[in-house]
Amino acid sequence: MLIVQKFGGTSVGDLERIQNVANRVVETKKAGNNVVVVVSAMSGETNKLVAYAEHFSKNPSRGEMDMLLSSGERVTASLLAIALCEMGYDAVSMSGRRAGIVTDNIHTKARIEEIDPAAMNKAIKEGKIVVVAGFQGVSQDGNVTTLGRGGSDLSAVAIAGALRADLCEIYTDVSGIFTTDPRIEPKAKKLNKISYEEMLELASLGAKVLQNRSVELAKKLNVNLVTRTSFSNEEGTLITKEENIMEKPLVSGIALDKNQARISLMGVKDRPGIASDIFNKLAEAEVNIDMIIQNIGQDGTANIDFTVAVGDLFDAKAVVDLFVESGDIREESYDENICKVSIVGVGMKSHTGVAAKAFATMAAENININMISTSEIKVSMVIAEKYAELAVRSLHSAYELDK
Amino acid sequence: MLIVQKFGGTSVGDLERIQNVANRVVETKKAGNNVVVVVSAMSGETNKLVAYAEHFSKNPSRGEMDMLLSSGERVTASLLAIALCEMGYDAVSMSGRRAGIVTDNIHTKARIEEIDPAAMNKAIKEGKIVVVAGFQGVSQDGNVTTLGRGGSDLSAVAIAGALRADLCEIYTDVSGIFTTDPRIEPKAKKLNKISYEEMLELASLGAKVLQNRSVELAKKLNVNLVTRTSFSNEEGTLITKEENIMEKPLVSGIALDKNQARISLMGVKDRPGIASDIFNKLAEAEVNIDMIIQNIGQDGTANIDFTVAVGDLFDAKAVVDLFVESGDIREESYDENICKVSIVGVGMKSHTGVAAKAFATMAAENININMISTSEIKVSMVIAEKYAELAVRSLHSAYELDK
Repeated sequence: MLIVQKFGGTSVGDLERIQNVANRVVETKKAGNNVVVVVSAMSGETNKLVAYAEHFSKNPSRGEMDMLLSSGERVTASLLAIALCEMGYDAVSMSGRRAGIVTDNIHTKARIEEIDPAAMNKAIKEGKIVVVAGFQGVSQDGNVTTLGRGGSDLSAVAIAGALRADLCEIYTDVSGIFTTDPRIEPKAKKLNKISYEEMLELASLGAKVLQNRSVELAKKLNVNLVTRTSFSNEEGTLITKEENIMEKPLVSGIALDKNQARISLMGVKDRPGIASDIFNKLAEAEVNIDMIIQNIGQDGTANIDFTVAVGDLFDAKAVVDLFVESGDIREESYDENICKVSIVGVGMKSHTGVAAKAFATMAAENININMISTSEIKVSMVIAEKYAELAVRSLHSAYELDK
Repeated sequence: MLIVQKFGGTSVGDLERIQNVANRVVETKKAGNNVVVVVSAMSGETNKLVAYAEHFSKNPSRGEMDMLLSSGERVTASLLAIALCEMGYDAVSMSGRRAGIVTDNIHTKARIEEIDPAAMNKAIKEGKIVVVAGFQGVSQDGNVTTLGRGGSDLSAVAIAGALRADLCEIYTDVSGIFTTDPRIEPKAKKLNKISYEEMLELASLGAKVLQNRSVELAKKLNVNLVTRTSFSNEEGTLITKEENIMEKPLVSGIALDKNQARISLMGVKDRPGIASDIFNKLAEAEVNIDMIIQNIGQDGTANIDFTVAVGDLFDAKAVVDLFVESGDIREESYDENICKVSIVGVGMKSHTGVAAKAFATMAAENININMISTSEIKVSMVIAEKYAELAVRSLHSAYELDK
């Protein structure tokens, strides 16, 4: 097999951990696999360099930041290659450029445009372990770029796609994807397999193991992704396409997002386009709207409720205030003490009664549901934040996820 | 004017010093010049990375060391560019590769083969200050290389040559080249100008401001080199071709080298090729010979005296021992308590009596001269180490270098 293994900052946080990574890579190689390793900067290094830059400028050039920050991954890559060679395995480190990772020229947030895998393939054919500096590439005009937050994961997935690797393992400090947050429900079980679509729903709903960009890219490139921990030999969770998952559970997991605020607009004037006006202005203010509910009151005016991330609340208020001043909205109110609980599972597509069971479970616990939104593989409910953990545990048990 | 300015590790040792460098670069730019800056890694960084590598391997691959170590200069280059931009000057950092520095593929000790100055010239034409990561280049097959000890100086000189710069300023913690070591003779004067040839003699004789490789390259490329300090605005010393120096002093400086040991071979058998045998074996053992004196004794056997660097003494002894065992040499003796004092000056070419004055000065101080060697622009004398400082001061005064 050809396996791409990606190790994040904490996995390569010090020299001893880099040696552990080397041991793991060697095990994989010994088992008869070809290995391409993608590494992040040692944890703390990137922050140190950012602090250096901020010493000189509050708004440093993005191109220079890329030149600066890309050095961290190069250091880890060469150190790991040195460790592997010392263990008797032929290894070679490559910068993003050397590995053929070509991006657009949006510095600090570049997108991978294509990968020329020639140098990597040549080294693999020579029996070498290839160690690639993650998070970075080179633009068409020859400048170093970086891929932004979670960039090393993207590097790994894109490389796995370009090399048609059998597996792309993302090593973190978490052992995989769980049916829910184990800090809330100790009975949470690690999932063996999950579909890209479910993972995307779970990630956007709060599971922070993998960024959506990486999962989306894996889905697009048809890369079998595994998340697992670098601190033990425990098996991780395979994220793959739905067809590869034989037993499709009704519900795969329960996600919780406490980072939500509800905005209620009461007495919204009954004139055409008013809702569109409001949400356009919110979009211009770069406020991301999650759920929206509208109902018509008895006086003909509408009530509109919507949720935003807590961080966007200030900007959202500023927009809404203008409509209240102009008289288009009679009254506004805010609630930061809410949360969103979601049930995710591909099995829902072909089963009925999943949502009904969720509502019944909430009712049995006397938890009032403020808002509901559903998709093909997801049911989300907004409830008071104080019930968050109770709701998660009840749902986890109702769908028998602890079994 | 187009000026190349090179700042070494101590000049960019911390963020405050990098800011000082930025200020100096801006002054040069403000005075109407185009500026290309070459920087080293922040002092301590390279040692830190070497220690990291040695944690994993006593003999790390040289290619990986280059990948590892080249990151230090990139960090400094981007930080300086950020500082310059913040001051309102358009600046761009470049890796060795980006600056077009192509080397052979002898990792960790690469030689610059050619420089493609297109990217630098384009940026200069756009009014930008170019900041180049020193010490590094790229081999024809696309791998990062480093230039070895003193590599950033070499980068600067080579870039100055490729860009046909008017001046290449090397900033260190010393304010220039002195008539002799001011710690020995406080009356030592800073030289305004000195020829490449004199500098080469002074450097190999102990003045450690510039490595000979850099001076040789400057001579070859006809680059006007200035060494000066980054810690004050004091003018430095211009190192240039002899024709550019109008007033040619008889003697420019007195150099002292205490790192010398003398090996005396007595009763060397009178057979053809014996001396050649001995020195061939020493060369094979990589012992560098400095001065050699041979005289024939009354019994027909020869006495041979030669000097080596103290560090080579152990290896030299091992070679000589073999000849003593075989009976080709009757007796060997060693003296580490010697030093070499040298008088250097292009003026000697056209003047007589320079050497005679040196010998007379030594005689007046009752200092015995063990060995003498001369070249067109140099007289070197080996004397007992205890007289080193006295000899330097006497000669400095005899040639009126304090005037």
